[in-house]
Amino acid sequence: MTLMPESRPGPFALRGLGSFHVGGSLRQLAGEPLTSLAPVPGSPAISVDPNGSYWVGQMYVQYACVADPGERPTLVFMHGGGMTGACWEDTPDGRPGWQAFFLRAGYDTYLCDAVERGRAGWARSPQFFAGDAFHMPQHAVWSNYRIGPQAGFSAQPLQRRGFDGSRFPLDAFDAFCRQLVPRWPANDALILAGYDALLQQMPRCVLIAHSQGGGFAVRLAMAHPEKVAALVLVEPGGTGGVLAADFAAACACPLLCVWGDHIAASPFWVAARQSSDALVQALRRNGSQATTLDLPAAGVRGNSHLPMLDLNSDAVADLILRWLCVDGLFV
Amino acid sequence: MTLMPESRPGPFALRGLGSFHVGGSLRQLAGEPLTSLAPVPGSPAISVDPNGSYWVGQMYVQYACVADPGERPTLVFMHGGGMTGACWEDTPDGRPGWQAFFLRAGYDTYLCDAVERGRAGWARSPQFFAGDAFHMPQHAVWSNYRIGPQAGFSAQPLQRRGFDGSRFPLDAFDAFCRQLVPRWPANDALILAGYDALLQQMPRCVLIAHSQGGGFAVRLAMAHPEKVAALVLVEPGGTGGVLAADFAAACACPLLCVWGDHIAASPFWVAARQSSDALVQALRRNGSQATTLDLPAAGVRGNSHLPMLDLNSDAVADLILRWLCVDGLFV
Repeated sequence: MTLMPESRPGPFALRGLGSFHVGGSLRQLAGEPLTSLAPVPGSPAISVDPNGSYWVGQMYVQYACVADPGERPTLVFMHGGGMTGACWEDTPDGRPGWQAFFLRAGYDTYLCDAVERGRAGWARSPQFFAGDAFHMPQHAVWSNYRIGPQAGFSAQPLQRRGFDGSRFPLDAFDAFCRQLVPRWPANDALILAGYDALLQQMPRCVLIAHSQGGGFAVRLAMAHPEKVAALVLVEPGGTGGVLAADFAAACACPLLCVWGDHIAASPFWVAARQSSDALVQALRRNGSQATTLDLPAAGVRGNSHLPMLDLNSDAVADLILRWLCVDGLFV
Repeated sequence: MTLMPESRPGPFALRGLGSFHVGGSLRQLAGEPLTSLAPVPGSPAISVDPNGSYWVGQMYVQYACVADPGERPTLVFMHGGGMTGACWEDTPDGRPGWQAFFLRAGYDTYLCDAVERGRAGWARSPQFFAGDAFHMPQHAVWSNYRIGPQAGFSAQPLQRRGFDGSRFPLDAFDAFCRQLVPRWPANDALILAGYDALLQQMPRCVLIAHSQGGGFAVRLAMAHPEKVAALVLVEPGGTGGVLAADFAAACACPLLCVWGDHIAASPFWVAARQSSDALVQALRRNGSQATTLDLPAAGVRGNSHLPMLDLNSDAVADLILRWLCVDGLFV
């Protein structure tokens, strides 16, 4: 499934579609030898002095703004580890993703590519990015994103066995893997600084953060409590090293944590779920609105770590939308 | 300038907005030692076996499709070296870019991130991508993109001097540099294969290619003459190693080559312009429609190598639009 599927609902109106880069700083490289490069196919190589100034730590943000957002808050989407803002666009099996869902629901959407990912670009390593880039092999993708039991993975697509009742579009596992990008082991401070530069310039907004993005969102909400109208953490992979009590002391914004199925299959996700539950409990003790949407407990079974890509992605988005508006948060 | 500027023309309607990955193949990694990674801030490191299967050579494509394209052809945008599809979105000084221009003119737009760039992701190097990634320092950006004379570059923004009469938004040079991404020296075949996979699935379309993308576009048009309705080469950085006579023998599609100012300042661009002129002449000898739009000769002075980002970007886009429709190509 590659070209735009034509079987979509009717047109929707935008008042703007575009992008910008934000954050980062100029850094200097010195002492490196000359390098050579053929700029285009067939051209002779030219010599280039790599020493000089480079931008390091900028972030990419793509906005799609609806014709009439009314009083609805702007949604900022923060992707997870190994991913980019593309995870909010079409699903790997070619259905409209959460960006399209929330645009059609009348919300302005801002999709981030965090520092080092996607269109944010990345800087020389090890001079500016410490350590080696990490590329995730398919067997690790399979288990980290909870597509199925480790023993169910095979290099042969037809031999893969997902969790019983999994809602991940198994036929599109390879298509999904094509959207993954490398990450560095020690860029958390740079990534957070990029998001921080964005938040400083944003109007009050709702952060919708997936997986690794959840920890950054928690820290952003603490740093900019006046800017963050609500936090939606989708399968947050921890809290960014923040203690639940410290979060609740700094920040009273409404919080929704969304969890899929088969958590018990992975000690990592069991621990992440516990951190998420602790956040919710700490906020509640302070009188803030905090909710865990445990999808299986709500009768919605089979979601992977990627509910925005699962076959019931629109149904999960609808539950988030309901929390945002029908439950009274932003009526 | 970072958030969506609100001073835009009225809303426009889309029937779809999304993305997909295309092309690439599964490759195997073997014999590497275990690696460890802390998946999220504050979490304990986990051990990962990097050996296994990886996607290599996929490309990212983002479509925005208007409510009513009528008989207008789909436009496929191919970026240049060091860039991504973001170069067709907003300009670095916050104006709407060519994507927005052509959407408002009623065209479906497909923005590519070529293999190894942006949201296409990139593969382990040197195992899958040969050679070292090349990061372009600002002094090379300055001269390669013809912002000003080499002596006019300074690390200090206020001391930079562009070409006299330059239309590049000099205050946004740093903002522009934030959108640049690394490239590899030996991935041309992979990049072309990614574009080829896209073309195989596209309807008949117009390729609008900038700089390095021009060489790939020339080769695509030769490989898929039935798919390419027209070629628009914007400051093409060569012809992909293709001889003009061979191109003209394989392909009769209408061709427009757009050139900015200050070519003579750079031997590289003088040679690229000669290759471009040879293509136009060879097509004309065969009776095909081929045009060089020499902007300074047409009285439009001061364009850099980046006419889609220059201050008169809409005026240049309008000349291309005129060639596409008013001059009779697709009435």
